[in-house]
Amino acid sequence: MTGVARIAVDLLGGDNAPAVVVDGALRACGADPELHLLLVGPHRVADEVIAALPAADRRRVTVRDVAGVVGMADPPLRAVRTDTSVRAAVGELAEGRADAVVSAGHSGASVTAAVHALGRLRGVRRPALAVTLPGLAGPVVLLDVGASTEAKADVLVQHAALGAAYARLLHGLPAPRVGLLSNGTEPGKGDRARRAAQTSLLAGGVLPGDATYVGTVEGYDVPLGGPADVIVTDGFTGNVLLKAVEGAYALAGGAEQPTVPRAAALLGVPGTVVVCHGKATGADVASGIALAARLHRAGTVSSIAETILVATAADADEVTT
Amino acid sequence: MTGVARIAVDLLGGDNAPAVVVDGALRACGADPELHLLLVGPHRVADEVIAALPAADRRRVTVRDVAGVVGMADPPLRAVRTDTSVRAAVGELAEGRADAVVSAGHSGASVTAAVHALGRLRGVRRPALAVTLPGLAGPVVLLDVGASTEAKADVLVQHAALGAAYARLLHGLPAPRVGLLSNGTEPGKGDRARRAAQTSLLAGGVLPGDATYVGTVEGYDVPLGGPADVIVTDGFTGNVLLKAVEGAYALAGGAEQPTVPRAAALLGVPGTVVVCHGKATGADVASGIALAARLHRAGTVSSIAETILVATAADADEVTT
Repeated sequence: MTGVARIAVDLLGGDNAPAVVVDGALRACGADPELHLLLVGPHRVADEVIAALPAADRRRVTVRDVAGVVGMADPPLRAVRTDTSVRAAVGELAEGRADAVVSAGHSGASVTAAVHALGRLRGVRRPALAVTLPGLAGPVVLLDVGASTEAKADVLVQHAALGAAYARLLHGLPAPRVGLLSNGTEPGKGDRARRAAQTSLLAGGVLPGDATYVGTVEGYDVPLGGPADVIVTDGFTGNVLLKAVEGAYALAGGAEQPTVPRAAALLGVPGTVVVCHGKATGADVASGIALAARLHRAGTVSSIAETILVATAADADEVTT
Repeated sequence: MTGVARIAVDLLGGDNAPAVVVDGALRACGADPELHLLLVGPHRVADEVIAALPAADRRRVTVRDVAGVVGMADPPLRAVRTDTSVRAAVGELAEGRADAVVSAGHSGASVTAAVHALGRLRGVRRPALAVTLPGLAGPVVLLDVGASTEAKADVLVQHAALGAAYARLLHGLPAPRVGLLSNGTEPGKGDRARRAAQTSLLAGGVLPGDATYVGTVEGYDVPLGGPADVIVTDGFTGNVLLKAVEGAYALAGGAEQPTVPRAAALLGVPGTVVVCHGKATGADVASGIALAARLHRAGTVSSIAETILVATAADADEVTT
């Protein structure tokens, strides 16, 4: 899918910002001729990007001069301040000057800034960060990988619906199979939150469209795929598991190793927000910008919003009839 | 270390029991001439093992005829019944006729049977299942990988102490470095249980001997090693993470891939109990029996009990002075 995509990029987010963000922006610009970048950060940093681009491409870059940063050790609430680069970048999206936002900063800060500026989709208590892993049997969407850390049954159920909508729209799966990550597939496995979520999901009426709930799945199923196209877990477990898989691939070595994505889509907010890993490289930032453009062009967020609204309405019907 | 080791083996535990257990018992017997096996299960199954052994080795096998089984879908509490193979096997240990127990059954059932027959070490609220992964920088002990599923700060702290004692005794590390698995190393990361455990561990006085607490570590650090010799997490997270790493190695392929152990030591009970994966192969069961023999010969459990008692006493001193 093509078409202009205007991506606001947080120049100051990430352990190795702004260098890797500058590198990522240049790579993304080179790879996608219909990409327009709105660089949010100090003018002198943005000028580096502009100076490194061929003259003909420079018109595709604009700058929003902002100096404030949310450091990795800062409290996420600092990200509600509009003089920080992440909040200003989300503000460009909220005000319609950008189609999507990419930040490699503190993920808690990016989520806070997004919710503060954009709000949440109706029926979503907490947003989720979703990544797609390359399984043997096709892509596997894993969420939440770090937007919130406490496991709550109702949040797991909402995230199951968001993940199903995302898999359908981004990966073209007409009837995604959704699994709940647990420590076994036998009855009674899982902690309290998992057992309660399992009961709600088995009761049905929660997932959008033709998505189906396939029950609990195990850790193996995240890298390998097979039983589920979408795997739901809490943000604490998803985060440590994703990083463990990344470490395992690094230990296994070899040139043809599978890789773990370092850019996640934020689901549950009415806007396209991509959060890259704090330790993202230039290539990771470029793939995050490409993901943001792809999501914008697919209209994913608006479609997810509609899907979730339909599911919420159907649910309300059931309650009232 | 050598010396006779009498291992009670639950013939009926595991998805592929008794075939894989018979296979594992034969492999273990062949590999270790000072191993004595007490096979707990139906006589006709035990007879298969005996018939397959060279005549000279048969005197190293005795049989306890028990027919009851705790299936993978049964409630773990069934394992308190002494007519089940897992409970009878632990009973042989409790009554001094075996030095250690190995089961590949339902891990919840094995833990329940062990606590019912043996009790718990003083100061330990819940036992933990510990495995050792082969990291780049040396072995990494991960616990809990499934003995309990709810994350509680006091249990995480107790498991940190158990893991440190285990790493010192089994891996000969004089001053093991203990890390708490979290979703980042910045202050404020982690869920409530993790943040409270972090506070207790930073306050000190909890770990035995010269063990040190190195703070929070991330998912990468489990397969790769480096910052910590012992990594503590709740049994839900540990279980899904371990299986995800196993799946990642399977996806990465290749002949020289690292492997994930499929036998875990149960820590926190006064006896040597090894729990193999429900999907264990004969080779996995044999490695579980070898681990049980090694733990018995190293006197690990009695040493852990002493270490934990010393730590508890030191803690009590602090409270009273």
